[in-house]
Amino acid sequence: MANEKMVKEITSMDEDFAKWYTDVCLKAELIDYASVKGCMIIRPYGYAIWENIQKTMDGMFKDTGVENVYMPLFIPESLLQKEKDHVEGFAPEVAWVTMGGEEKLEERLCVRPTSETLFCDHFKNVVHSYRDLPKLYNQWCSVVRWEKTTRPFLRSREFLWQEGHTLHATAEEAKERTEQMLNVYARFAEEVLAIPVVKGQKTEKERFAGAEATYTIEALMHDGKALQSGTSHYFGNGFSKAFDVTYTDKENKQIYPYQTSWGTTTRLIGAVIMTHGDDNGLVLPPMIAPIQTVIIPIASHKEGVMDVANGIYNRLKNVCRVKLDSSEQTPGWKFAEYEMKGVPVRIEIGPRDIENNVCVVARRDNGEKVTVSLDELETKIPEILKNVQQGLFDKALARRNQMTYDAKNLDELKEIAESRAGFIRAMWCGDRECEEKLKEVAGVTSRCIPFEQECLSDTCVCCGKKADKMLYWGKAY
Amino acid sequence: MANEKMVKEITSMDEDFAKWYTDVCLKAELIDYASVKGCMIIRPYGYAIWENIQKTMDGMFKDTGVENVYMPLFIPESLLQKEKDHVEGFAPEVAWVTMGGEEKLEERLCVRPTSETLFCDHFKNVVHSYRDLPKLYNQWCSVVRWEKTTRPFLRSREFLWQEGHTLHATAEEAKERTEQMLNVYARFAEEVLAIPVVKGQKTEKERFAGAEATYTIEALMHDGKALQSGTSHYFGNGFSKAFDVTYTDKENKQIYPYQTSWGTTTRLIGAVIMTHGDDNGLVLPPMIAPIQTVIIPIASHKEGVMDVANGIYNRLKNVCRVKLDSSEQTPGWKFAEYEMKGVPVRIEIGPRDIENNVCVVARRDNGEKVTVSLDELETKIPEILKNVQQGLFDKALARRNQMTYDAKNLDELKEIAESRAGFIRAMWCGDRECEEKLKEVAGVTSRCIPFEQECLSDTCVCCGKKADKMLYWGKAY
Repeated sequence: MANEKMVKEITSMDEDFAKWYTDVCLKAELIDYASVKGCMIIRPYGYAIWENIQKTMDGMFKDTGVENVYMPLFIPESLLQKEKDHVEGFAPEVAWVTMGGEEKLEERLCVRPTSETLFCDHFKNVVHSYRDLPKLYNQWCSVVRWEKTTRPFLRSREFLWQEGHTLHATAEEAKERTEQMLNVYARFAEEVLAIPVVKGQKTEKERFAGAEATYTIEALMHDGKALQSGTSHYFGNGFSKAFDVTYTDKENKQIYPYQTSWGTTTRLIGAVIMTHGDDNGLVLPPMIAPIQTVIIPIASHKEGVMDVANGIYNRLKNVCRVKLDSSEQTPGWKFAEYEMKGVPVRIEIGPRDIENNVCVVARRDNGEKVTVSLDELETKIPEILKNVQQGLFDKALARRNQMTYDAKNLDELKEIAESRAGFIRAMWCGDRECEEKLKEVAGVTSRCIPFEQECLSDTCVCCGKKADKMLYWGKAY
Repeated sequence: MANEKMVKEITSMDEDFAKWYTDVCLKAELIDYASVKGCMIIRPYGYAIWENIQKTMDGMFKDTGVENVYMPLFIPESLLQKEKDHVEGFAPEVAWVTMGGEEKLEERLCVRPTSETLFCDHFKNVVHSYRDLPKLYNQWCSVVRWEKTTRPFLRSREFLWQEGHTLHATAEEAKERTEQMLNVYARFAEEVLAIPVVKGQKTEKERFAGAEATYTIEALMHDGKALQSGTSHYFGNGFSKAFDVTYTDKENKQIYPYQTSWGTTTRLIGAVIMTHGDDNGLVLPPMIAPIQTVIIPIASHKEGVMDVANGIYNRLKNVCRVKLDSSEQTPGWKFAEYEMKGVPVRIEIGPRDIENNVCVVARRDNGEKVTVSLDELETKIPEILKNVQQGLFDKALARRNQMTYDAKNLDELKEIAESRAGFIRAMWCGDRECEEKLKEVAGVTSRCIPFEQECLSDTCVCCGKKADKMLYWGKAY
């Protein structure tokens, strides 16, 4: 077969994790590089994953009362500058439009890196009375941040995301919403992406520009590095004041309302790749897999094989996302191809299977093969998909637990950071200097102050002073 | 009720159609103006309409084998310049990014006005053999065109759209796809938006920059102006040549593949407003209405009313998109509010109705009220919604037919163009000069050469020479 597309080989994880990652992105046909440096093209298979993520997450948002909107792509420079901390955080990394057609613009426009300023500007127009609150808004769009170093899905100059922006009458309600959305993210990561996450609060140093508090979900990748996978911010009424957004309460007083924002990005696809993938390529959790089950006929030229394969396809298409590959490639080629693409379940059906009224069902996550009666397909396949979903989560959780270490003092922490990859749990006094020192001497940054606290000791891992907060530390993407 | 939001008044259509349109956009809460001139904020109610449009249309695309992708927001200037006609058409109206962070870019990037160039650049990477064809791609995104005069949904500097881009082995297949997608658009407009359209081809003068043929669906608005509502382009292999995209055919020859693109935008929402709306506001076809049925309790303080209203809500939520408005506003206020928002069906339920085991059902499109037994709600409401959908189409079609005039010579055409608003059907010799003259002397442009031809006479309406093409002419948005 001269023209046969060759089964693609990829670098092994152990040899070079970064190269393995890029190989998977390209060879599973998730992305292509674009002419614009640092941007990516999301190909059909990659985009179908994003569509599945969007659909489920959007439903979870709407269940909490969130409505979708669309704000402009551009932010006038003067608008971006209204909130001091915010502009300081973002101005250095935005793209500026300076020309419209042949004319120089009177005011530069930045391509949105995030849209707090646009939402505030709009809230000012539509919020007047307590009756107009809360506003629970979200948008799905792309944003631009002029990064120097880029990697597909993890860090690129343009990426797709959702950004939620809510406005509330009281601080309590806004704080509740901040935590509620973090919980939505955590549930989504664990139940849909099968990625265990640590929920917690960012330290002041790691906070979002302009926020009073930033919450995060942190996941651990295969190589032991941490990936911030979703954040939720509480702004107090700082933006309201900067943008002069007020509402009239029941006593006819003018009040500055309280604000939140929360976001997740196509980075989640990177998290899936680096949590579940292996040396044969991508491994997808069934809940987001564009193809959940692929049917591969064996000796398809033999009488009856394609008929039975088609019959299986027609029965399964009502219970899962199924594909029948009847192309002229060899079964071996197809096995490797769908392994590369991370399809959770493969069905093999050949003449001997048909004689016995069975088929062979292989799991992508653990390679397990079982023989299933053709009569039971509609119940067995969804059951196996469910087991794959759970199996991926369990495996990732076990690995994360295994790769999470406790350190009581600086020597222990340095030793762990040098010799092992993973999360390090350690006590912290709350001092920014200690955070900076740990970065300097051990190369780790604070990931979060987890909601689930545990007292590992009474003293700060760095300075030895009294400490009552346990932190997760790690090397991060 | 000091704090009650007042029912909003709008300009009547006859008084000032343009003002009526803007009033509806703002007061039905579809949009808000943005800080960036010529851009718009799509508010939750407007965006929910767009989501319904997207969902249905996307399904129709996928049924024809189309896959979604995502291309970058930016196009390097050198890439945009590769196809001569295309760059001439678009360069004067694009926004240019010249700075990334603090640094001046080496090459200017334009914010995509359309993405033919990006798709071609990608096709070059992924298309090698005839086995790689066809590529049937689409993306949902926003695009930017630096327009001087803007109006919500109809013409704005940024708008949301879908752009399909396909690549084929043969010219025939590409031409077929161009027509197939135009037919999808026509079906969508008529069956989903209830807007009758004329399908046809654009004249050379009105063609898309770089296309060999442009097909269009043209709709007639309430004020007699035409609205181009979707276009599908056949490119031949011009772009392939400009971008050096080739494939190897079965005989091992290198061939330039053939390309199409096709797009519809948020302008469709403008078409819905101006086709179905009336002096009480928006009128939405049920298929895209965010709320299909609103339940308004009458004398809701009376015992049992809210219970029954809630019961109706719980029964209807499985058969349509339903809302129960239990707020403290008066029923009269609510009637006007949901009329403004174009909700297709209103259910009124009060103490006397409950006594008689009925409710009153009012149609937004024609004001008709019927009494429906509470026992029959689940069958009657979907039936009424279907009738509203059909009723809107029938009414729009009747109006369009009534507002379509035939002209045999220049005097007739001028007379019609001056005294009546609508489509004018007339023969044309095929000469661009006649097109330009009609624009000059009668203010009309060619809308399309309809697929359904009819011979009105043997001579061109303008120059009197032999003519065998009937065209639709009109004043356009």
